[in-house]
Amino acid sequence: MKAIVALGGNALTGKERKAEIKKQFEAMKSTAKSIAKMIKNGWHIAITHGNGPQVGALLLQQKIAMREVPPMPLHVLGALTQGEIGYIVQQCLLNEFERQGINRRIATIITQVLVDENDEAFKKPTKPIGPIYSEEEARKLEKSYVMGRVEGGWRILVPSPKPISIIEADIIKKMMEEGIVVIAAGGGGIPVVKKGDGLQGVDAVIDKDLASQKLANEVAADILLILTDVEHVCINYGKENEMPLTDVSLQEIEEYYKDGHFPPGSMGPKIEAAINFIRNGGKETIITSINKAWEALQGKTGTHIHE
Amino acid sequence: MKAIVALGGNALTGKERKAEIKKQFEAMKSTAKSIAKMIKNGWHIAITHGNGPQVGALLLQQKIAMREVPPMPLHVLGALTQGEIGYIVQQCLLNEFERQGINRRIATIITQVLVDENDEAFKKPTKPIGPIYSEEEARKLEKSYVMGRVEGGWRILVPSPKPISIIEADIIKKMMEEGIVVIAAGGGGIPVVKKGDGLQGVDAVIDKDLASQKLANEVAADILLILTDVEHVCINYGKENEMPLTDVSLQEIEEYYKDGHFPPGSMGPKIEAAINFIRNGGKETIITSINKAWEALQGKTGTHIHE
Repeated sequence: MKAIVALGGNALTGKERKAEIKKQFEAMKSTAKSIAKMIKNGWHIAITHGNGPQVGALLLQQKIAMREVPPMPLHVLGALTQGEIGYIVQQCLLNEFERQGINRRIATIITQVLVDENDEAFKKPTKPIGPIYSEEEARKLEKSYVMGRVEGGWRILVPSPKPISIIEADIIKKMMEEGIVVIAAGGGGIPVVKKGDGLQGVDAVIDKDLASQKLANEVAADILLILTDVEHVCINYGKENEMPLTDVSLQEIEEYYKDGHFPPGSMGPKIEAAINFIRNGGKETIITSINKAWEALQGKTGTHIHE
Repeated sequence: MKAIVALGGNALTGKERKAEIKKQFEAMKSTAKSIAKMIKNGWHIAITHGNGPQVGALLLQQKIAMREVPPMPLHVLGALTQGEIGYIVQQCLLNEFERQGINRRIATIITQVLVDENDEAFKKPTKPIGPIYSEEEARKLEKSYVMGRVEGGWRILVPSPKPISIIEADIIKKMMEEGIVVIAAGGGGIPVVKKGDGLQGVDAVIDKDLASQKLANEVAADILLILTDVEHVCINYGKENEMPLTDVSLQEIEEYYKDGHFPPGSMGPKIEAAINFIRNGGKETIITSINKAWEALQGKTGTHIHE
């Protein structure tokens, strides 16, 4: 059985959501135990992950050092964080496998994700990323970024286009089938567009759950397992009649989605990914917390979305 | 035929040796044409590369921003640059392949390299890296690094231990055999040691040519192709009786090496790598410049070292 395991939030950086390296190793050591359970039970997986705190730290460093060191474009920063996080994930997993006598190899694949340069998102970048800049700094950055006024200054605004395809999907698929645990599409992948002379990076951020879904369909995964901070998806979240979802059909979840149960900034993209995965031939999307991953895969907890 | 192609100097950053992203893409676009010739002629290769200017830029950014953003350890910076450079190399290659109708896939593998924690190099770090720091900055950094006095301030001194084995070598070998062009062991690889609870990153720098050689032997490559800024290795370099080497036996090159023809900072490690590769079963090491790579592989130029 093949699964894409999308790591978010606590799984990578712990509760504080900071990019500090020690915390990342600590969080990942614990996450590795959950992943090892899947591997021990014969699953073939690729792991995807977010990069918010890590890319935020790099942007802040660039901001402070921008007079002395030319800032790098966002697509390159994405590549940097794939190296950083991939390394941490692969080392922690390898050590956990070694401890448990699991004989499976691990590899991080730097992943580009194709987006459409005519995607509506490019017309008006809306997603703020990184630190707050002064007027003077913002003017410098305007050469490479769209800057948006926020309270206290300016922030970089980037478009969030939809992923069209995963450039390295066939390699990832082959490696998964050979039993290699692959770490891929980190931070939603490095966004690239097709230009006259080939692929070219663009300053955008692809939602990591949508990129994970795209990858899941392209490698023909059975399960898309989205690991987040809650054990269940809820409807009427935060209200008196809040209700956790355990087992829902595609039709049901689409109804809930239309009715506005899942806010765009948090659960929304996960539900969109869940729906897309099933619509494109996937068996089941499971959304749960990192420490419940294995129980959820056995059907004991989590929110299960299927045809 | 299998080869490890070690990219250095101009191949990655152009003549100015700066980490500026535009220059890196430009330099690599040109380098990709040389690589494409090998691929078109049926070679199976893995590409390794240095990371001096790139890791230097990150260290400088960290220095300037160290009050606001906690600096990352050197092994993590190594992982960051593997992501950065791997992305640039793979995108430029993919575009060149597309232009020429070459149907070969490309993947960057984040690579850890095992070193011995009892390596003599750890007793007294001697390799200076990154920018010059003030006394105050140096004191802060002393918590994580050995600092050495230099003219105008302090620099980080790191050990340069010998590579023992490439952790991801078997994956890289398999991918190469399947015809995938692999980018691996960037910057000499991320140095790790074996501790009680598994692998652990260390702040060191592994010579990229020695790491390339180790990889070449571990994947059973036929050729180790070291690309640098000169077409030939010379004896009596810079003197009146300077002589380029074209075809030399292991025994001859060992004699020249002993006689001090190859300085430790530049040609020395390349010659050491050349010797080690042959001694451990490799067929031939070729040292030449990037734009002569294909001609050298055909035996038309470059320095060829063989049994």
